[in-house]
Formats: sequence, structure tokens, C-alpha cells
Amino acid sequence: MSSTDGSVAATADAQAGAETGREAIVRAARRAFTLRPYAEVTMRGIAAAAGVSPSLIVKRFGSKEALFNTVVDFRSAADELFAAPPSALGRHLVLTMVELRERFRGDPLLRVVFSLGIEDERTLLRARFREQVTDRLAAALTGPDAQLRAELIAGQLLGLGATLSLHRPDGAGSHATAERLADLYAPGLQRLIDGA
Amino acid sequence: MSSTDGSVAATADAQAGAETGREAIVRAARRAFTLRPYAEVTMRGIAAAAGVSPSLIVKRFGSKEALFNTVVDFRSAADELFAAPPSALGRHLVLTMVELRERFRGDPLLRVVFSLGIEDERTLLRARFREQVTDRLAAALTGPDAQLRAELIAGQLLGLGATLSLHRPDGAGSHATAERLADLYAPGLQRLIDGA
Repeated sequence: MSSTDGSVAATADAQAGAETGREAIVRAARRAFTLRPYAEVTMRGIAAAAGVSPSLIVKRFGSKEALFNTVVDFRSAADELFAAPPSALGRHLVLTMVELRERFRGDPLLRVVFSLGIEDERTLLRARFREQVTDRLAAALTGPDAQLRAELIAGQLLGLGATLSLHRPDGAGSHATAERLADLYAPGLQRLIDGA
Repeated sequence: MSSTDGSVAATADAQAGAETGREAIVRAARRAFTLRPYAEVTMRGIAAAAGVSPSLIVKRFGSKEALFNTVVDFRSAADELFAAPPSALGRHLVLTMVELRERFRGDPLLRVVFSLGIEDERTLLRARFREQVTDRLAAALTGPDAQLRAELIAGQLLGLGATLSLHRPDGAGSHATAERLADLYAPGLQRLIDGA
């Protein structure tokens, strides 16, 4: 291997390492903010879980609040989930949810439910979810009871992710195609979207 | 107050105290088994959270495994949820879920979702849920894909509880009547039950 190849490889390795470090911090922070009250989460604890130094997290993400705002954000998932006209949204929601879960190797919304298991006086995670998912959905719906219907649609989305995770890896949902899941699960969603 | 009245009152107090103690142990144990891996849960920790002595828990419930089997059981909720003929089950599920949540001041099923937030090699809670809820439901369904439809029905039930808890206390779901929730949410469930 020439020295040029070597330094290219070293740079690629360093980039991969930096990426892995960032990914490890994000995962550890998500887990900590989901499972513990905000006040109990420490940068030191996240650093230990991610296998990096606390100062690296501060350098990369800033304060604890800045880190929270970076890692707990439902907007990009909502952007993809809601990217269909209302008449086709039910099926799009199911197909996109399955796709996002595969791409991120985890559920894009479900952590908000884990947070119900703890008593967090700040309930930041829930406020974030309501604002970025439920309220956004309600604003896109027409007809009566838009807010209530948006809450129930959010419920069905959370329920889909919950049941797929719960029955993994040998459940029927793990073996079904996304199309088959949509055939069965989309009509209930579409009915709530239509409000009819 | 006569001495007779006094001793009646004292007995009633002692019974109320015993009931409160049992209730406190059950709550603390449910919380511990939901939020922590089984191996990390200790009788000492549950006792401290419940404000009783570890020996009282052993006396009342037996071993840690016996306590787990007592407090984490979905059968009585399933008995009530599934007590309707298939043609009326969708609406019955929604009304019963709302009623159980009110009666127990908490969701009868949702703790299984909280448990997804932890990595528990034994996943006892999930196995219990699959056996007592999903498989029981699948056995009651006719038509194709009964197991898959049962998983999706379980998902919608979990999602209903999740969204009601998540949007409390000022969400639209908190102010809607059980009948209105059933009007909106039952058709999707009924469609999965019918398998049509």
C-alpha cells in the first residue's frame, strides 16, 4: 500500500471513527433522556455509556439542553410520515413507518411512550411530541374533531411500532411485507384522516 | 366513642393499612419490573419504594419470581377486554379500555411497551403479554392471517392507551366521552377483527 493510500485509509478511518463516536453519543443520549427524568441525566453518564469523554460531548453538542434538543426531535420523522396528500395518507403512514424503522433500526416515535414510565416533571419529551407530531397532524386535517382525530392517528402509529417491536423477532408482523401490513392497518388510519 | 366502637375502628384501620401496604407493594413491584431488567430488580428496592420491610413482601408474596408472576399478569384485563362476541368486539374493546384505565388509574396493558425501553434478556413481560393477550386474541379470530391481525389489534389497543396517557391532561382525548372515542376508534379495530 502506498503512503497516499495509507493516509486516505487513515482519513477514512478517522471519519468513520468520528461518525461512530457521534452515533454512540446520540444513541446513549436518546436512551438516557428516554429512560430517566431530565434532571437526573448527566453528561458524565452519557459519556460513560458512549465510551467517550464528557468534554467531547460538550465540544460536539454544547450544553445538556442543546444535546436534548438535538437528539430528541420528531421533526424529520414527521416530515417523511406526513409527506402525502390526505386521501393517500393512511397507506403512506404505514409504509413510511415500516421503512423508517428499518432504516434507523428502531422506531422513530416510540421513545415518547417509554417516557410515560417515568415521572418527569418537565415532560419535555411529551411536549415535543405533541407539538411536532400531533398538533402538526391536526393542522393538516379538515372536518370535525381534528385534534381528537390527530391524537387517535398518533395512537395508531405508536401502536403499530409498539406491536412490531413487541412481537419481534418471531411474530407474524416481523414476517409480513410492508404492503400486507398497509392492507390491514391503513384503512383504520384513513378513516380517522377522512373524519367520515 | 365506646371501647367497642374504638376497636371496630382500629380493626378497620388495620385492614385499610394492610390493603394500602399490599397496594403499595404491588405498585412498587410493577414499576420496578417494568423499568428495570428482571435481574436488577431486588426485593430490598421494592420494599424501600413501598415503605415496607423486605420480609413483609416475602411473607405476603413469596419469592421474587412469585411476586413477578402476581403483579405482572394481563389475564384479568384480557378477560374483560375480550368479553364480547366478535361482531361487537371493536366497540367493546374501546369502551372497556377507557373503563379499565379509569378504574385502575392507569393503563392495563401499556407497561409492556415501557419494557421495550430496557434490554432484558429474559423479556418475561413481553412473553407474558404475547401469551395472555395476542395469542388468546388470535385463537378467537377466524379468517386469514389471524396471528397478524391479532398483533395489529393489540397494537391499536396499546396505541389507544399510549395516546390517551401522552396527551393528558389537556388533550382532546381527555375530554372526549368513551362513546365518542369508540365512534372514531372502533371501526379500525372491527375491520381487523372481521378480517375483511
